[in-house]
Amino acid sequence: MAGVEEIYIPDYDDVLKAHERIKPYIHRTPVLTSSFMNELTGAELFFKCENFQKAGAFKVRGASNAVFGLPDDMLAKGVATHSSGNHALSLSYAAGRRSIPCTVVMPKTAPEAKKAAVRGYGGNIVECEPSTSSREAVFAEVVAESGADFVHPYNDPRVIAGQATCSLELHVDAGPLDAIVAPIGGGGMISGTCLTLSNISPDTKIYAAEPKNADDAYRSFKAGHIIADDAPQTIADGLKVPLKDLTWHFVSHHVEDILLASEKEIIDAMYLTWQRMKIVMEPSSAVPLATILKNKDLFAGKRVGIIITGGNVDLAKLPWMAS
Amino acid sequence: MAGVEEIYIPDYDDVLKAHERIKPYIHRTPVLTSSFMNELTGAELFFKCENFQKAGAFKVRGASNAVFGLPDDMLAKGVATHSSGNHALSLSYAAGRRSIPCTVVMPKTAPEAKKAAVRGYGGNIVECEPSTSSREAVFAEVVAESGADFVHPYNDPRVIAGQATCSLELHVDAGPLDAIVAPIGGGGMISGTCLTLSNISPDTKIYAAEPKNADDAYRSFKAGHIIADDAPQTIADGLKVPLKDLTWHFVSHHVEDILLASEKEIIDAMYLTWQRMKIVMEPSSAVPLATILKNKDLFAGKRVGIIITGGNVDLAKLPWMAS
Repeated sequence: MAGVEEIYIPDYDDVLKAHERIKPYIHRTPVLTSSFMNELTGAELFFKCENFQKAGAFKVRGASNAVFGLPDDMLAKGVATHSSGNHALSLSYAAGRRSIPCTVVMPKTAPEAKKAAVRGYGGNIVECEPSTSSREAVFAEVVAESGADFVHPYNDPRVIAGQATCSLELHVDAGPLDAIVAPIGGGGMISGTCLTLSNISPDTKIYAAEPKNADDAYRSFKAGHIIADDAPQTIADGLKVPLKDLTWHFVSHHVEDILLASEKEIIDAMYLTWQRMKIVMEPSSAVPLATILKNKDLFAGKRVGIIITGGNVDLAKLPWMAS
Repeated sequence: MAGVEEIYIPDYDDVLKAHERIKPYIHRTPVLTSSFMNELTGAELFFKCENFQKAGAFKVRGASNAVFGLPDDMLAKGVATHSSGNHALSLSYAAGRRSIPCTVVMPKTAPEAKKAAVRGYGGNIVECEPSTSSREAVFAEVVAESGADFVHPYNDPRVIAGQATCSLELHVDAGPLDAIVAPIGGGGMISGTCLTLSNISPDTKIYAAEPKNADDAYRSFKAGHIIADDAPQTIADGLKVPLKDLTWHFVSHHVEDILLASEKEIIDAMYLTWQRMKIVMEPSSAVPLATILKNKDLFAGKRVGIIITGGNVDLAKLPWMAS
């Protein structure tokens, strides 16, 4: 466990500082309720809508906290990351707001729409081959050349403190919750949720929701150590990445359980939410509702928060249209 | 103009009473903003999201006001209407909440999903042939037999006073506006908007947005009397109906102008809103943004409210997927 002792574990004071720091650059997203969903699940649900967040996802919280916390002497060199998802968009957005350079290493096979969105926020894309080895080599080169600060998508205390502001707002706006359910991929959102609630609402049980097809966090949780899958396949494409030491710290200490949902259950929950709540959200965001629907006993009669993590989908290719 | 003198024209006191009456049965829907949309239009836009409303549309305001304002001796006979759209859903919802009968006359050709939704709220469907003559004959029979109170989808002072609560909330939550743009079909929402704002914010200019393919309100406005089209074809299917005497009263007295948008402009504005604001809304709801985008000079630098009227769409048949 030597590695764990070397990393800085953010505390609640970091969360409060993050919230003050990022407030001008993020939306205070609304908390929606639905009597239909309450009747369906038997629970009282509070949906924190980060799909309405800047850049379309909660990731802008952590990215903004890292960018706006950078000391002045680091500004000229800017920030860098590797991601083809919401973290790339979010870091580009935040860097753009602070007018500092942002470089994103992305596989050349990433969708053009994602690349265009990163560039739209002012991000600079360096392409790599679609393999881990190429990505790491290219990224190392970028950092060596630019001296940019690496902002990891989740295994970074600044990022986790930023994501932690989401459950803080939910707690304030919805009132104390019996439970909260958030998706788990690398564990950044869940870690932030653990960080906040273990401090301000230790009785709230924290559940992580994971696709059965990418259940590495579930298996890690049961085994008591990190297990990483090589290339899981799930429609919830934000949830394919593995836990790392910092997120494992929070998951192993504060998560009540990890619940799984099949691809069909995820798509059904996504469709139902679009249809009844009229919100556009990503497949990843549907995993919590899918797990609540198949574990009703666990949540019946309880006040339950759900994090809708993002809304960046391709509207021309919706999963219920797949033939 | 003899007809106009016989009808009761609701006043602002009716709006305040309606708001108190319906509050327990409706959502206070959020007002969303989008820096992307502000940059795109050059205006500061405030989107009042009635797509998140109970039954998925603003129509529940007027329907609830009619249903919960019914005197006790009318309750047993219930309410009735003819509609295959959001008013049918809304009246069924409101009647269900008050546990009184609700009969809806619908063409037998109406989509099964719509019929199922009406029945889901407890409404009783009587089918007619898909013609005006059959609808009127069947509806007259229903009312004669049941003695039910007819709640017209828009040409009813109770309904207009109910719809008027929407712009009241928007005015309070967003602050005073320079202009407001709402879709126009039969004119219920626009009339309610005129009723509220002419009383509490007479400097706010009220624009109605209409599909070019169903421009009967536009032509009525220019001609100075009601012109009704027979069977206009537009993707904005909530906006096909003509003005009536009561809504004409408000439109002719208080509307600044009626702006038109083509089918393509409506679909483009709808897609853009889904993509950037992550909300599911009907084609009708996209007409205001479409008209703002083609009349930028009119709104540049102004604080502009937009009513997103509803979110009831068939997710399996989205217009940008049409081949």
